[in-house]
Amino acid sequence: MALDSKFIHHVYFWLHNPDSKEDLQQLLDGLRKLTAVSTIRQFHIGVPANTSRGVIERSYAVSWLAIFDNAADQDSYQVDPIHLKFVEENAHVWQKVIVYDSIEAV
Amino acid sequence: MALDSKFIHHVYFWLHNPDSKEDLQQLLDGLRKLTAVSTIRQFHIGVPANTSRGVIERSYAVSWLAIFDNAADQDSYQVDPIHLKFVEENAHVWQKVIVYDSIEAV
Repeated sequence: MALDSKFIHHVYFWLHNPDSKEDLQQLLDGLRKLTAVSTIRQFHIGVPANTSRGVIERSYAVSWLAIFDNAADQDSYQVDPIHLKFVEENAHVWQKVIVYDSIEAV
Repeated sequence: MALDSKFIHHVYFWLHNPDSKEDLQQLLDGLRKLTAVSTIRQFHIGVPANTSRGVIERSYAVSWLAIFDNAADQDSYQVDPIHLKFVEENAHVWQKVIVYDSIEAV
């Protein structure tokens, strides 16, 4: 199944304390609550796989993939109270975030 | 729908000639052929969205998201003749590739 016209929002988190299982768990728990946002069509909460070729980035702690029907739904997610609460409660555990937003290539 | 136990393979490509529509089109066409690999459960061929906050990386040319049932299927994709042919035919158009492979966080 192609995801075709979907809006792909993929966030990678690096923690201030990469060795803290508590901080990792807090972020994972926060993301699980974040999945309640109604416009999220599919999601994946991940950690680096064991693959390790030269081109593979695996220094991040957590991967958050959220798939929306369109850009407007992702925009509304950004200001959804559930998302704002997630950021407020968890932003102190991450040191760096990189976001890749992609739309269908035509 | 959660993607739960899926293996998420997300590749970002930067082109040698970012302004070449021909090179971009070649890469997109190559990825479309690549979707024929039988273990790919879902895929998305993308370009940067219009979002532009500070944390957003939008310097890449093409996003290739491929979702597999498990790590073994992704391993077999790496050596699938269709994938090898894709690399052989198209590697000259990209300057840089970053790959993020993620598995379910538990």
